[in-house]
Amino acid sequence: MGKKITSKSEDYSQWYNDLVLKAGLAEHSAVRGCMVIKPYGFAIWENMKAELDRMFKETGHSNAYFPLFIPKSFLSKEAAHVEGFAKECAVITHYRLKKDPDGDGVIVDPEAKLEEELIVRPTSETIIWNSYRNWIQSYRDLPLLINQWANVVRWEMRTRLFLRTAEFLWQEGHTAHATKEEAMEESLKMIHVYADFAENFMAMPVVIGEKTESERFAGAEITYTIEALMQDGKALQSGTSHYLGHNFAKAFDVKFTDENGKEEYVYSTSWGVSTRLVGGLIMTHSDDNGLVLPPRLAPIHVVIVPIFKNDEQKSAIDEYADGIVKELKDNGIKVKYDDDDNKRPGFKFAEYEMMGVPIRLAIGPRDLENSNVEVARRDTYEKKIESRENLAQKLNLLLEEIQDNLFNKAKKYREDHTTSVSSIDEFKEVLEKKGGFIEAFWDGSNESEEAIKTQTKADIRCIPLKSDNAEGKCLISGKSTNLKVLFAKAY
Amino acid sequence: MGKKITSKSEDYSQWYNDLVLKAGLAEHSAVRGCMVIKPYGFAIWENMKAELDRMFKETGHSNAYFPLFIPKSFLSKEAAHVEGFAKECAVITHYRLKKDPDGDGVIVDPEAKLEEELIVRPTSETIIWNSYRNWIQSYRDLPLLINQWANVVRWEMRTRLFLRTAEFLWQEGHTAHATKEEAMEESLKMIHVYADFAENFMAMPVVIGEKTESERFAGAEITYTIEALMQDGKALQSGTSHYLGHNFAKAFDVKFTDENGKEEYVYSTSWGVSTRLVGGLIMTHSDDNGLVLPPRLAPIHVVIVPIFKNDEQKSAIDEYADGIVKELKDNGIKVKYDDDDNKRPGFKFAEYEMMGVPIRLAIGPRDLENSNVEVARRDTYEKKIESRENLAQKLNLLLEEIQDNLFNKAKKYREDHTTSVSSIDEFKEVLEKKGGFIEAFWDGSNESEEAIKTQTKADIRCIPLKSDNAEGKCLISGKSTNLKVLFAKAY
Repeated sequence: MGKKITSKSEDYSQWYNDLVLKAGLAEHSAVRGCMVIKPYGFAIWENMKAELDRMFKETGHSNAYFPLFIPKSFLSKEAAHVEGFAKECAVITHYRLKKDPDGDGVIVDPEAKLEEELIVRPTSETIIWNSYRNWIQSYRDLPLLINQWANVVRWEMRTRLFLRTAEFLWQEGHTAHATKEEAMEESLKMIHVYADFAENFMAMPVVIGEKTESERFAGAEITYTIEALMQDGKALQSGTSHYLGHNFAKAFDVKFTDENGKEEYVYSTSWGVSTRLVGGLIMTHSDDNGLVLPPRLAPIHVVIVPIFKNDEQKSAIDEYADGIVKELKDNGIKVKYDDDDNKRPGFKFAEYEMMGVPIRLAIGPRDLENSNVEVARRDTYEKKIESRENLAQKLNLLLEEIQDNLFNKAKKYREDHTTSVSSIDEFKEVLEKKGGFIEAFWDGSNESEEAIKTQTKADIRCIPLKSDNAEGKCLISGKSTNLKVLFAKAY
Repeated sequence: MGKKITSKSEDYSQWYNDLVLKAGLAEHSAVRGCMVIKPYGFAIWENMKAELDRMFKETGHSNAYFPLFIPKSFLSKEAAHVEGFAKECAVITHYRLKKDPDGDGVIVDPEAKLEEELIVRPTSETIIWNSYRNWIQSYRDLPLLINQWANVVRWEMRTRLFLRTAEFLWQEGHTAHATKEEAMEESLKMIHVYADFAENFMAMPVVIGEKTESERFAGAEITYTIEALMQDGKALQSGTSHYLGHNFAKAFDVKFTDENGKEEYVYSTSWGVSTRLVGGLIMTHSDDNGLVLPPRLAPIHVVIVPIFKNDEQKSAIDEYADGIVKELKDNGIKVKYDDDDNKRPGFKFAEYEMMGVPIRLAIGPRDLENSNVEVARRDTYEKKIESRENLAQKLNLLLEEIQDNLFNKAKKYREDHTTSVSSIDEFKEVLEKKGGFIEAFWDGSNESEEAIKTQTKADIRCIPLKSDNAEGKCLISGKSTNLKVLFAKAY
């Protein structure tokens, strides 16, 4: 493993980068803003994908696949959409290279210029709604509930591994409905699916809320969000679900005949989460020794490290460990026995701490004698000796306990870092000294929203769906309002 | 469902297109050469992916993800590689659009020109080996066994749904090894994994062989292939595995220190299969009534259609069917109960035939009375009455029987359409009258290979790995040779 990573207290941002690299999760590539997701990082994403995919299917959605490329003219069909995405997209202008007549390499063949440029999808509403026009004729074709797992590209200028990259992996749901009510219900249903996933799998507590008008998705009438709080007191927008009204149906002329034979535009939603979630997972639980993973998403649940002085001890431990490995596997536990001779136990301990493996078992000659194992938890560093008996059952319980502990710890952190304020001075003081979510009243105007952003660099993360409907005075304008919103600095 | 599809005998190519559209598998998109994979087609691909992914992991491979974009200069680093791929690639030259000052739409912002153009990956050897340089230092880092599921783009001029599209989905394995032997073994191992998948899941018999030099992957020293025979007598290259020698290691300067402290270049392989397999699956088994799917890849194993005249009958059948659905699900059978009131049973029968659902159960009032169901096979159209008792068990056996029958039928077709010839006249006659694979001797020269291609439009599909080492005379040159190869026209 070599030297340690930067501590969180020293430099949170550097700690994050060190951890991502050191734990073998991802790294920068030769292409500006694009990352390489390494096998261990990808295994976490695969686990996330598998659970989300199951949840989407259980709520009636099917997967499909639409083209990577979007004709340039499609973007312009929805006015807000083109505003939002034209500024940061990869543009394909040619379809061939040729040998450089003046050198060794290849150059773009000027004769292979496209008549209309293609955009690498930053999101797929336009190309998908262009297909939906042919798929939807009658109310019998609705609802259309489709999801796509894909890569998308947004030409971000400042990138960070997982959190903001030019290319990222995500899923995007795109649904079509006969009624406004049904579409609104779908967009709410999916933000709750995301919240369920975040809390019950990532052990990351989230606030479900609505974005303000200025923060809505380009083309949406309502944008719901789940907002999580990272350990440095900054918020992470972790998933969004949009009610799109008639916007894309009108832009792509998608109508259906209702039960009375009348032609109507279709209502729609879209919703997505991305590899950014891996960044959120890291920043919710990890510590100065590396990654801490909730068991439900960990690629390895339990690692077993043998401790021995000679070959005889080693082979006795091997045999003992083989039995344990088998028992754990049979009980659904992902286990790794690391009997690599080239690394000392201490080195291995540090390595699996860095990788965030929830439970480590150490087995030495004395454990064998007494039919014991040493069990160490990654989350609390607690160690204890357990008897070999019913080990799988005990470890499964412990994995659940770790999962719960991580969630509770993160939730307590969020509670401790959510502060209600009633003046802008108080707001600034809390933001500077404590960070976290700040609850305050807002009059609903763009002006007040902008004023706070300019003065504090914190913005409105969301208008929480759960509200006590209390009345109060706007921080900026002093007007009475019942909008109590959540502010924070954010990633 | 509407009108029928074109028959195979009338126009095989039109039959294929009709079927792909009518069964809801895929369609053309607004982007030249790119397809939309519709939910039912994607469900088949997902099933393929799941099995292949399992097989890759069981053989020690991990998934990772590398950038979509490749710097133009990377392509030129391996001489054969750039020759093979520069002619058909999507080139990104700009990273921003702006409002058209002379119109409504958007135009490419000339100020947002990239310093170095980026290519949308046609395959990822170059971007991956550029990363491997930093990942591999010592023999302890080897072997490196990585797979990627991704989309790739090759600017094909003539495209066909699934079989050849500008963008397609695939997996690409990229492995690094300390020794030549180990790399060669890996490339052979993976072509056998593909053959196993093709035969045991797709029920598609394949010939494993080596490509001739002229047909090798651009940058490979050996290319292995699996070749399948479609029902029109044309071959489909269905998967390839390449031994790349030192080519990419040298191009990207990837060396390791061996156990004796000596620096050596790394040996490598790559291997891939794509959504083209869905095309192969369709063309191996389907008929004039639509798709025929092998049970192991079918999204739905069993569909249940109720036959009733009134609500009372309907609700009695519903209850009976519910019990069957539950029993089948509990036994791992993917079952759909189609009680849609708006479609007549005959319409549904045709619909599920089109979709290739392996087994259809029909349940009428008399079946209820006698505790029976009517069981119809998609592959043979056989119908029989079965008793309700142990139904799941019987259907699981029947699904296995269907899987075997499809494989055996396809294998018999291939055997019947594999002909040994010993003269070029005989070759031409067989090719014209019967099609299929033609076995003949070849002297190993480019000239003879080209001559046959020019004269017949059939080419060498592969030099089969299984050979009886017989001697014979080359069709063209008459020279003695022990290379008995397989010719065919191909997709």
